[in-house]
Amino acid sequence: MSPDAALNRWIRHDFAAINTALEELYFAQGDRAQVEGIGTDLKAELVRRGEELLAPLLAEGRTHDGFDSALELLGDVGMYLGALRRHELTNPDRETTSPFATASALALHVGVSIGMAPRFATAHLATHNRAVGGLRRSFTTLHDEFLFIDENTRGIFGLQSAAYALTRLVPLGASSPVADVLFAEAEGALKGVAACNARLFETLDIDRFFYCVRPYYKPYRVGRQVYRGANAGDFAGINEIDLMLGLCRASDPYYAQLLHEKLPYMLPAEQLRLRESMSRRSILDQLLDHVETDRDAPWFVANVRAFLGVCDAFGAIAAQHHDQLVSRFVAGPAQTMAPGHMQGITASGPPLEALLRSLEILRDLRMAAPRGDIASRHDDMARLRAAIA
Amino acid sequence: MSPDAALNRWIRHDFAAINTALEELYFAQGDRAQVEGIGTDLKAELVRRGEELLAPLLAEGRTHDGFDSALELLGDVGMYLGALRRHELTNPDRETTSPFATASALALHVGVSIGMAPRFATAHLATHNRAVGGLRRSFTTLHDEFLFIDENTRGIFGLQSAAYALTRLVPLGASSPVADVLFAEAEGALKGVAACNARLFETLDIDRFFYCVRPYYKPYRVGRQVYRGANAGDFAGINEIDLMLGLCRASDPYYAQLLHEKLPYMLPAEQLRLRESMSRRSILDQLLDHVETDRDAPWFVANVRAFLGVCDAFGAIAAQHHDQLVSRFVAGPAQTMAPGHMQGITASGPPLEALLRSLEILRDLRMAAPRGDIASRHDDMARLRAAIA
Amino acid sequence: MSPDAALNRWIRHDFAAINTALEELYFAQGDRAQVEGIGTDLKAELVRRGEELLAPLLAEGRTHDGFDSALELLGDVGMYLGALRRHELTNPDRETTSPFATASALALHVGVSIGMAPRFATAHLATHNRAVGGLRRSFTTLHDEFLFIDENTRGIFGLQSAAYALTRLVPLGASSPVADVLFAEAEGALKGVAACNARLFETLDIDRFFYCVRPYYKPYRVGRQVYRGANAGDFAGINEIDLMLGLCRASDPYYAQLLHEKLPYMLPAEQLRLRESMSRRSILDQLLDHVETDRDAPWFVANVRAFLGVCDAFGAIAAQHHDQLVSRFVAGPAQTMAPGHMQGITASGPPLEALLRSLEILRDLRMAAPRGDIASRHDDMARLRAAIA
Amino acid sequence: MSPDAALNRWIRHDFAAINTALEELYFAQGDRAQVEGIGTDLKAELVRRGEELLAPLLAEGRTHDGFDSALELLGDVGMYLGALRRHELTNPDRETTSPFATASALALHVGVSIGMAPRFATAHLATHNRAVGGLRRSFTTLHDEFLFIDENTRGIFGLQSAAYALTRLVPLGASSPVADVLFAEAEGALKGVAACNARLFETLDIDRFFYCVRPYYKPYRVGRQVYRGANAGDFAGINEIDLMLGLCRASDPYYAQLLHEKLPYMLPAEQLRLRESMSRRSILDQLLDHVETDRDAPWFVANVRAFLGVCDAFGAIAAQHHDQLVSRFVAGPAQTMAPGHMQGITASGPPLEALLRSLEILRDLRMAAPRGDIASRHDDMARLRAAIA
Ligand code: HEM
Ligand code: HEM
Repeated sequence: MSPDAALNRWIRHDFAAINTALEELYFAQGDRAQVEGIGTDLKAELVRRGEELLAPLLAEGRTHDGFDSALELLGDVGMYLGALRRHELTNPDRETTSPFATASALALHVGVSIGMAPRFATAHLATHNRAVGGLRRSFTTLHDEFLFIDENTRGIFGLQSAAYALTRLVPLGASSPVADVLFAEAEGALKGVAACNARLFETLDIDRFFYCVRPYYKPYRVGRQVYRGANAGDFAGINEIDLMLGLCRASDPYYAQLLHEKLPYMLPAEQLRLRESMSRRSILDQLLDHVETDRDAPWFVANVRAFLGVCDAFGAIAAQHHDQLVSRFVAGPAQTMAPGHMQGITASGPPLEALLRSLEILRDLRMAAPRGDIASRHDDMARLRAAIA
Repeated sequence: MSPDAALNRWIRHDFAAINTALEELYFAQGDRAQVEGIGTDLKAELVRRGEELLAPLLAEGRTHDGFDSALELLGDVGMYLGALRRHELTNPDRETTSPFATASALALHVGVSIGMAPRFATAHLATHNRAVGGLRRSFTTLHDEFLFIDENTRGIFGLQSAAYALTRLVPLGASSPVADVLFAEAEGALKGVAACNARLFETLDIDRFFYCVRPYYKPYRVGRQVYRGANAGDFAGINEIDLMLGLCRASDPYYAQLLHEKLPYMLPAEQLRLRESMSRRSILDQLLDHVETDRDAPWFVANVRAFLGVCDAFGAIAAQHHDQLVSRFVAGPAQTMAPGHMQGITASGPPLEALLRSLEILRDLRMAAPRGDIASRHDDMARLRAAIA
Repeated sequence: MSPDAALNRWIRHDFAAINTALEELYFAQGDRAQVEGIGTDLKAELVRRGEELLAPLLAEGRTHDGFDSALELLGDVGMYLGALRRHELTNPDRETTSPFATASALALHVGVSIGMAPRFATAHLATHNRAVGGLRRSFTTLHDEFLFIDENTRGIFGLQSAAYALTRLVPLGASSPVADVLFAEAEGALKGVAACNARLFETLDIDRFFYCVRPYYKPYRVGRQVYRGANAGDFAGINEIDLMLGLCRASDPYYAQLLHEKLPYMLPAEQLRLRESMSRRSILDQLLDHVETDRDAPWFVANVRAFLGVCDAFGAIAAQHHDQLVSRFVAGPAQTMAPGHMQGITASGPPLEALLRSLEILRDLRMAAPRGDIASRHDDMARLRAAIA
Repeated sequence: MSPDAALNRWIRHDFAAINTALEELYFAQGDRAQVEGIGTDLKAELVRRGEELLAPLLAEGRTHDGFDSALELLGDVGMYLGALRRHELTNPDRETTSPFATASALALHVGVSIGMAPRFATAHLATHNRAVGGLRRSFTTLHDEFLFIDENTRGIFGLQSAAYALTRLVPLGASSPVADVLFAEAEGALKGVAACNARLFETLDIDRFFYCVRPYYKPYRVGRQVYRGANAGDFAGINEIDLMLGLCRASDPYYAQLLHEKLPYMLPAEQLRLRESMSRRSILDQLLDHVETDRDAPWFVANVRAFLGVCDAFGAIAAQHHDQLVSRFVAGPAQTMAPGHMQGITASGPPLEALLRSLEILRDLRMAAPRGDIASRHDDMARLRAAIA
């Protein structure tokens, strides 16, 4: 078995088993957030076996036989480092360079050569999580982790399908009569996302998720630099929808910074798609050009109506994500947590308060909410609604 | 107005008006296929105004400000040449080089620089037919032409959506539990295509289509070479479905030749997608690997069932296309045609018989029909069906 | 050894040995152009062993592990078919489809998937001819074949270096003071090409080249279609130089057709480069903009002088190629050939007369010769020379 | 004039004039490093006019008509911000977000959409500094700035040419007989770089460079994030040489981090080239495979000799850069500087000591110096030299 295959098999089996055993130890405690000093032997075994498997890969000094295998390797190394972080065997706040030099070097080499941040990304667990005989990669074998990554992946697929429908509108223009099927497809796909979200809301165990799944998504260091945690939004589709609908704008400083920051965490092909959609004129702006002159044209009435249907469906899942999922599974449990553990509970690094505020802005942009302090399209949407009322 | 804008506006208005007037003249005759000698003044005007608009574009000696404008220009020049062909002002069978040197030079320059055959392609009328105030490009303003190009475009969108669902399966593998949403999406999209086909079957006027729309899709010469007609299948999705499902194989000589031949008629981005899907392992082949060992595994039963659902939906539209659309709108009317006009009635060039035989092979591959003479996957599909029976 | 490795090793050794033995038989005859009926056993062995090695590759039904290995495979299959053609075991003029179905199917599958014509191309013998322990691929082990392919490759490298210098001028503009090093580099590289040409002129054996090397470059059929022979000009650099200098124009119908025709015979990366250079403004056109207003500006004098130096060096090798190489090694021996063999002596298919005429046009464009019948830049170059005289 | 054209013209003229006037004021002082409080009106005018020109561009909310114009725009905005930093109108050390919100938003929008860090990069002043009537962009009109950017650009071109020669070796392999011209071309190009360096060493004014040119290359903030200064090494060629020769390795943690860090500062096409060369096997490693078995083979002796010639030329310029240029123009003057200004004298941010140490490592890797503490290839090179001694 080649060194990459050996590592991959380990990640799928023993690695997940060790992590699961550690989770059970932590979870059985009064203070479930207490990690240090627990399961020392298991942790040692995790480190030892990982190092053993990585050494020959680094020695090979080669990156890849092709993009797919490089991406899989980056996921394996990255999940290893993610687990070490979760078990507090490394912690970016108390170190200036990763104590895991071999894993860091390998991650940097592979990451740079495929054009992604040198850590595991959402793609590794979601859209590009290769199943072998039905088994995909995961940190643990906990039911709630599978539930989470599977529904997450399904949600991402739905957003991608909606985005693909909307981006095919670009060459047609917002007045095309055949846009009807694309609007309908986008709306349908977004409703599918709402269903995933609803299933997660109902079935995911709050504590298991908060204490045993989420901690694997924390930021960690690779070499000298800290890389923020994997984020379910690290694919182009969600922003393609924002930009194509026109609810967010790439020239808005807040939003431009957000796009800039997330690019390295996306697959190169996704980076490309996102970049392309940044120079397109949005459907909203196209329709507004005609709001005075064509308000009675059948194409205008039909396409505005269909467009608003998509926006409503999109706003609905933005609200659902923030007001249900984030609130129930992150904000809620965080409040009951011992203050000593608060630091580092957010995946992407910033303190929880800042994260929530930032997510709120996104929600309000997507809902075109009436907010004077941010560049929401509330008034423009209102003009459009009025035109066909 | 820039020279490209002037040409584009002409194509959208006067050009379509002249063609429509000519169609009404032809159609009013006893022998509707009689074109030569009819409407001489209209034809002269068509040529004259076209030449006038093209000359400054060639003189500029520049190709483009970007892909989008180059693609639009290629469509305009190409539709102009397509109309000249339709009105028998050029005919590849009696010439060795196009009599329209300016249009040829421009088409070659633009075509080569964007990487497509130097003629109008399906994309120009379908997926990339930009609407201006609801109006898209067309040869005529006949109701049946709009009906045809609109439903065609919707059908293409449906096939693209199905293809996008299936190609996202590649990184997951055929055993992934989250494949469920992708299979469902593919099946749903294919059923949408069946609906487009059914609408066309019911509403399209046979004679109008056969005599007044189809002739614009004939092969013509650009410079010295003949380029075959635009073909509704000139996008990657249909073949991505073939290849991903595994119903056709890129190593099958018949099918490889077909792919090779169609590549230049597709947009560069589509060429890339098609090429990428040629080196992927099909879902059928992946599932067959497990047919002995995992037939009782829940993932196998679920995914095979979903896969067969997609194949059934796909086979159904293949049958519908051939047995209903091609039969009713091409083969049927061709039989009643005066023998003198038979030559050149097929869009892609070969004689009707050959074309029909070739379409039949495709239908049977897609239906996995039991045919010993071609590489249909009938037996492999049967094994799979039996395994979960 | 994997099936591709086995084929590749065969091509490098036994295949070349069989071809060499056959060449010695042909060359020993009074009529060296007599091929049919000679060396029947050797030919049979060639066919047999080739088929044996290709069968498992086609059965695998996979194209590639990556571009490099696919390109190498295409070269191997293509050289096999090229040799069959050279030994008259297939001849496109008397067949409508290649009698070598396995090789054809494999070549089509690989060719389409990497985006090149399904036959061996210049890259396979020149810029991408991988050496193993100093040994590169060749049809025979004849000294003159190695001499030819090696000097050809060196010549191509020189043209590529000149092209790379000139294309880096694009973002700077023709007036930049730092263009000096790029002009100098281009001129130096072109002088290196002249040296290769001179070496070939002096050392290549006319008869060996004409009778034992050139015939491997004939057109042949893959599946149903004929693909023209490999041509030393099948890389982007030569045309990048034409276009960047401005001596040829992509909107010239003759030249546009030539570019269009050669694209599939080039590597994808080269196709891209060529396409990109088609939409650039040439240095000549940029300088002409200033010929009235800036003739005394130091930058103008310096850059025009340097530009003309490059043009002179380029014109010189164009003349040398045509008047020395083509004349001595192709046109000359062809005149002494028995009339019965004349057909098919040109690599690219057209009769010798037509080929020579076409090469003459290219020479005259590149020399900016005073020819009224073609779009040579003679007068524009004269204006420029006069301006700094 | 379009808003981008207006901005671009301003940068080329008035902007440079204001900066030059400010430099003369600073330079005339006893403490030339004193910037704050000097030339207040000029500074105010700089800010005012810049804001005026940027506002309409941001309002347009569009990024670009194509890559070239976007790149030029990013350079203009970036140079504006670079000048504001140089004049201490912004300073990342005392701010957490850039005080120039419009410029930041525009830079982020454009930068993200073309895939580069949102600041001016070396390409803007060097390889992609478009000249208009002989005039290229610069911060000032000082003789020493032109001298610096011109020779720098020539040096970069030389390194690119050497890199292009070496990367064309990849498909041939290190044993190919036609590698001779590529090795010779690389060596020649590197000697040209040495000449640029020598010219700079002799002619550049130490104080003008140190006090009036270098400060424009400091790090600054765009939005919230600090971006390190433009660095003459921000193009692929230098690292392609490192990697292809084998003197540096992409799996070396130090070097991998360096590559990772510099990618966003390079043009997308350069990023791609760099990434591709990361997965290639180096010439050194290829030759070492044969050091025992083929030491007497003519190809080995010839190619090793040529390879060592290239390495020697490369080592020589590495030494020259560090021991002459960096020492004379950066380290030297820094020692005489008033301690209060020391902070921020390095372009890339880190303190001077750290920068020098890091440049020393690079020099020693490139010279294959005998250093036990870093992964220099000294011993491997020695084996190779011994083999052909
Ligand atoms: C024995 C020496 C050579 C002979 C007899 C020769 C002959 C020819 C012929 C006959 C063609 C037309 C292609 C065809 O066969 O249809 C051609 C094309 C070409 N040859 Fe050569 N050639 C020789 C050496 C070289 C060398 C050393 C170079 C340098 C790189 C070169 C560069 C080209 C180019 C660039 C073309 C393409 C025409 C174009 O697009 O410009 N040839 N050559
Ligand atoms: C006055 C002349 C020069 C000085 C003082 C100088 C100084 C420096 C310094 C200090 C750095 C480190 C980057 C930083 O500031 O953080 C650097 C990097 C670099 N310089 Fe120069 N440089 C000079 C001329 C050149 C020239 C002419 C070239 C030729 C192309 C060149 C090529 C490079 C390269 C490639 C790097 C990047 C380091 C690497 O990745 O190898 N420099 N230079």
